[in-house]
Amino acid sequence: MNFASDNWAGAHPSIAAALVEHAAGFASAYGTSELDRKVEQRFSEIFGREVAIYFVATGTAANSLAMTAVARPGGVAFVHREAHMMEDECGAPEYFTGGARLCPVDGALGRIDPDALDRAIRRYPAEFIHAGQPMAVSITQATEIGTVYRPADIAAIAAVCRTHGLPLHMDGARFANALVSLGCTPAEMTWKSGVDLVSFGGTKNGCWCAEALVVLNPEIGRDLPFLRKRAAQLFSKSRFVAAQFDAYFVNDLWLETARHANRMARSLADAIAASSKLRLAWQPEANEVFAIMPMETFAALQDAGAVFYEWHTPHGYAGVGKDETMARFVTSFATIDEDINHMTSLLAS
Amino acid sequence: MNFASDNWAGAHPSIAAALVEHAAGFASAYGTSELDRKVEQRFSEIFGREVAIYFVATGTAANSLAMTAVARPGGVAFVHREAHMMEDECGAPEYFTGGARLCPVDGALGRIDPDALDRAIRRYPAEFIHAGQPMAVSITQATEIGTVYRPADIAAIAAVCRTHGLPLHMDGARFANALVSLGCTPAEMTWKSGVDLVSFGGTKNGCWCAEALVVLNPEIGRDLPFLRKRAAQLFSKSRFVAAQFDAYFVNDLWLETARHANRMARSLADAIAASSKLRLAWQPEANEVFAIMPMETFAALQDAGAVFYEWHTPHGYAGVGKDETMARFVTSFATIDEDINHMTSLLAS
Amino acid sequence: MNFASDNWAGAHPSIAAALVEHAAGFASAYGTSELDRKVEQRFSEIFGREVAIYFVATGTAANSLAMTAVARPGGVAFVHREAHMMEDECGAPEYFTGGARLCPVDGALGRIDPDALDRAIRRYPAEFIHAGQPMAVSITQATEIGTVYRPADIAAIAAVCRTHGLPLHMDGARFANALVSLGCTPAEMTWKSGVDLVSFGGTKNGCWCAEALVVLNPEIGRDLPFLRKRAAQLFSKSRFVAAQFDAYFVNDLWLETARHANRMARSLADAIAASSKLRLAWQPEANEVFAIMPMETFAALQDAGAVFYEWHTPHGYAGVGKDETMARFVTSFATIDEDINHMTSLLAS
Amino acid sequence: MNFASDNWAGAHPSIAAALVEHAAGFASAYGTSELDRKVEQRFSEIFGREVAIYFVATGTAANSLAMTAVARPGGVAFVHREAHMMEDECGAPEYFTGGARLCPVDGALGRIDPDALDRAIRRYPAEFIHAGQPMAVSITQATEIGTVYRPADIAAIAAVCRTHGLPLHMDGARFANALVSLGCTPAEMTWKSGVDLVSFGGTKNGCWCAEALVVLNPEIGRDLPFLRKRAAQLFSKSRFVAAQFDAYFVNDLWLETARHANRMARSLADAIAASSKLRLAWQPEANEVFAIMPMETFAALQDAGAVFYEWHTPHGYAGVGKDETMARFVTSFATIDEDINHMTSLLAS
Repeated sequence: MNFASDNWAGAHPSIAAALVEHAAGFASAYGTSELDRKVEQRFSEIFGREVAIYFVATGTAANSLAMTAVARPGGVAFVHREAHMMEDECGAPEYFTGGARLCPVDGALGRIDPDALDRAIRRYPAEFIHAGQPMAVSITQATEIGTVYRPADIAAIAAVCRTHGLPLHMDGARFANALVSLGCTPAEMTWKSGVDLVSFGGTKNGCWCAEALVVLNPEIGRDLPFLRKRAAQLFSKSRFVAAQFDAYFVNDLWLETARHANRMARSLADAIAASSKLRLAWQPEANEVFAIMPMETFAALQDAGAVFYEWHTPHGYAGVGKDETMARFVTSFATIDEDINHMTSLLAS
Repeated sequence: MNFASDNWAGAHPSIAAALVEHAAGFASAYGTSELDRKVEQRFSEIFGREVAIYFVATGTAANSLAMTAVARPGGVAFVHREAHMMEDECGAPEYFTGGARLCPVDGALGRIDPDALDRAIRRYPAEFIHAGQPMAVSITQATEIGTVYRPADIAAIAAVCRTHGLPLHMDGARFANALVSLGCTPAEMTWKSGVDLVSFGGTKNGCWCAEALVVLNPEIGRDLPFLRKRAAQLFSKSRFVAAQFDAYFVNDLWLETARHANRMARSLADAIAASSKLRLAWQPEANEVFAIMPMETFAALQDAGAVFYEWHTPHGYAGVGKDETMARFVTSFATIDEDINHMTSLLAS
Repeated sequence: MNFASDNWAGAHPSIAAALVEHAAGFASAYGTSELDRKVEQRFSEIFGREVAIYFVATGTAANSLAMTAVARPGGVAFVHREAHMMEDECGAPEYFTGGARLCPVDGALGRIDPDALDRAIRRYPAEFIHAGQPMAVSITQATEIGTVYRPADIAAIAAVCRTHGLPLHMDGARFANALVSLGCTPAEMTWKSGVDLVSFGGTKNGCWCAEALVVLNPEIGRDLPFLRKRAAQLFSKSRFVAAQFDAYFVNDLWLETARHANRMARSLADAIAASSKLRLAWQPEANEVFAIMPMETFAALQDAGAVFYEWHTPHGYAGVGKDETMARFVTSFATIDEDINHMTSLLAS
Repeated sequence: MNFASDNWAGAHPSIAAALVEHAAGFASAYGTSELDRKVEQRFSEIFGREVAIYFVATGTAANSLAMTAVARPGGVAFVHREAHMMEDECGAPEYFTGGARLCPVDGALGRIDPDALDRAIRRYPAEFIHAGQPMAVSITQATEIGTVYRPADIAAIAAVCRTHGLPLHMDGARFANALVSLGCTPAEMTWKSGVDLVSFGGTKNGCWCAEALVVLNPEIGRDLPFLRKRAAQLFSKSRFVAAQFDAYFVNDLWLETARHANRMARSLADAIAASSKLRLAWQPEANEVFAIMPMETFAALQDAGAVFYEWHTPHGYAGVGKDETMARFVTSFATIDEDINHMTSLLAS
């Protein structure tokens, strides 16, 4: 009953098998092998347009490189107050960019509010050198609290970006979970809605280590080959990342694992909604479930063997009572029905 | 007949098997799993003292983090003129450190000359703020041209370091190849000779992606957990690196693969020495062989199917004649006798 | 009737005379002249303890170097939401530090609220590497909206700093204005209340260009000679800054000019309070007066020759009505009674 | 008899008078005053084309900002081995650029050799991401050892720059001394010879603190307003720098002071050449004289009251014998005939 995080899971058997398959033989290094090129081509097919792909070691690296690719002096990137870049990257985006600022923007349920975004950007008037200058907007899909931006939500944010001449980045550490939740295409969720760059994560969805920065806007990021190498993120045996993505895309494995994870989350949410011991903080839209419960329920579940984290209540969220706390349950490709059933019975008893 | 680089090889079957073995189940993320801890303990055993270990994505990352851990404002690190940090890391050490300088130092056969080092450091007098200040010395073991520092060589450099109060770093991308060449212990090759930090590479010697910064001097690098995370080098599924190192150390696999690679290099060098078509540039001491040959021999070997790179002649090296060039042949765990035999017959014919 | 800013004023005649006096002759460069040393000694006397002094070109430089002196990887500095570092330095503190973050803290009337500060710091738990780590707190004295921290206010903030092991920095661009407003000593306003570093500004109070970073805590900033030089902030003819400070301190000129500026502000505030055309936003405590007025009054005053800026309403300030705006009036050593009288008559008519 | 450095001198009386003249009254801050604009216009007239001007605090700042304006990831700037940026700026260019590298280039008498430059650049092949990428060439005019590049010399270097698509920067800390030495126009010495950016120094030639980055190529440096502000180099009372330059240019004061300094250097050199006690290291071409002398002569001159520095012998310079040393004598606007006569008699006696 492990719901700690989707990065506590291991690797999907097909991913593991792909690594073994490519263990033998020689291949040119630093991202120039045939397998690397084949996977790059697959990305273009998946996104429905020619894209540039940069494998990196971590999601933080993809986000930080994306910011570096669009950095300006005195630059300010606008992100949701609870975004991963803001809360969990130890200042990596600021460090990579040589000092860009992340400006927190509000918005309900983990999603940037377009009006709040517009107001935040307007505090940095163009050409007013004292304040610095806007350089990008970044959204997280799925969000840190398991909600999802619909294409229309993204388009509304992209419209604000266009008004101010800013590129739009998507932190897609849980790209697949959002995608299958929406039932749309990668194109619809990204460039057709105005997204310019995507941090495309495979690690949380069944890979060992497979993260890529995907550049959708050909005007952006011409320096990325140098930026990535300079950031010590260019793998010599790059093909081991390529091999993971290769298997990830075969027969839509990535969509299948994401659907599984979301389904598990839905089942767990249903069990929570049906229980008198705790309640949903909000409806899950991907593979994370947030629940509010008495402290004693929290302890009892953990004693019963459930592994999960207490969650820092979002800014301004008022639904947690005295003697209560909020918890996060994350599902993944590795979550099994037995664990959901076990949780269901624990919650029902 | 692939002698392009040891990073063109794939993964040793035992490494591949270890990854599969650890694919299932859940484990705590970000380097905190039991397997991570077990491997950390193994490193301490191997080095014969308690060490701190930081897995990173690339050798460049290990080197750059090491420099960051010892950085000072206006800092200058002294490296061999042909070092990997100087020639092949796209400014990553400078970038990670926020602008430290790499000062090239001369020395025959890829090894820093201690006297030249001392003279170079003295150009930055302590407390003379205009010049900046020395911050570290870094040596490459094995060197970029396949030679090896003996423990006494290292101790001589460490003595210069102590005179100036500087830490000594070892870029050990080919640590194992140097170690088995010398027949000494990791302790003798590092801290007993005065080394404070090691970039310990497994990737070139049979892993897919297994690099670690090893801190031998407990006075150094207390900030490294933050420095690594800030550099986007902390893997969430860190155990996949740990699993590689775990298998790497079982039954001294790492020493066996390194011995094999060195032996293959020795055989190839013997074939070159016996040939009238080309000659050794210098004696190989690890797993790289450098040879000087007429352009037409170069072309003929490539036409015959040998894969290898032309090599930029080292500064000041005078042994390459007109219509000649220098080539590098790298062997690895994946090099097979058949290829050496094939090369031998090509060279003899 | 120029109330645009205290940096629109020129130089006090005594400062100008001092520069002429020191124009002739030779003096050793880069801050090592006798005059430099004499002024350093004066600072120690003024602060009532031995201090280290670093002249720099701008207040932004002093603030940014202070942050650099206390920077940590993934570091976060806590500043008031409306602080100069946050609003008007184009990301210089972030840039100088290689990516430290400024975390906005709330508090009424431009002053950090100690409880809000404590809560903000606690969002970065010690040793939780994902969030980064607290590195400093900075207060602005006088604040950006012309209010002043009392020594007890500073001590309350310093107590929070001590709890979390953080140094306390004071941005004293208007140090003198705050000091004479409080009627206390520099020691009481700084180290006796727990301040470790001060950006000590002379420019706004009658100098041409005289800013110094004053280090009160001898444990901090040993690297500052290198940090300043590396930041291109070490003047070769440093004595020209020293000469300004030398004259600044003669016969307490600096306190006299500050008292004059504050008195002019008080008179202007009284005229505003007595007027039916506009009202004070809050009581001025130093040399800045903020007033709320109808748009048409704003335009009328400007048409009548008054020079002043509209002011971005502070976050959460609710006192500005529809068709109204907020304006800032800054006085300085150069403000004359005639201008105040003229304004008074304009407001009364 | 002070020959320590031209930055040991104070300020020319006309410069001092200009500062007093502009002490009174109000002027808009941050480089937007009428005087600022007037001086910008003067620069354009002097250079014979429209230029952009950025006042900064130090020559190091001008150089470092110039490098930042042309920085590329993994960037390498090519400078003479003895350049100020290389020897005396504490890593500021590297720091400002976030880690660009300075690559030392050889050349006789302080001047970059165009062929050596071309070879150095070719070690960084375009698109070879491992090495990094060339970003700029910088020459020092007059050089650190008092020699001067003729326009044809500059054009030869500019031709190499064009071949590799690199901008050419001139560190003109002693711009005026070089200019009057050559007897050409600023246009001929800069953009007509292929220079794109100039660090234009006034401080060493009679100002207190007057340095400007001059951008001649309109394609370069559009971000400089933000880059300068972010580097804490934007003076609030910018007009105090403008006032210095304003006086500097009146009646060609700057050329007059430079001619005086050069003439004093020539006289001193003649005295040295005529003396049996010491000899010229090379012919001075601006306002610095280098001489080789026995240690005892060095001591005797200092004992007689001459102030000057021993000079670190340039790399590869072979003219200093055993028991000898090299010394540098710098003249300036403030050097007087009496001192030269005194030196002449000391050397002749």
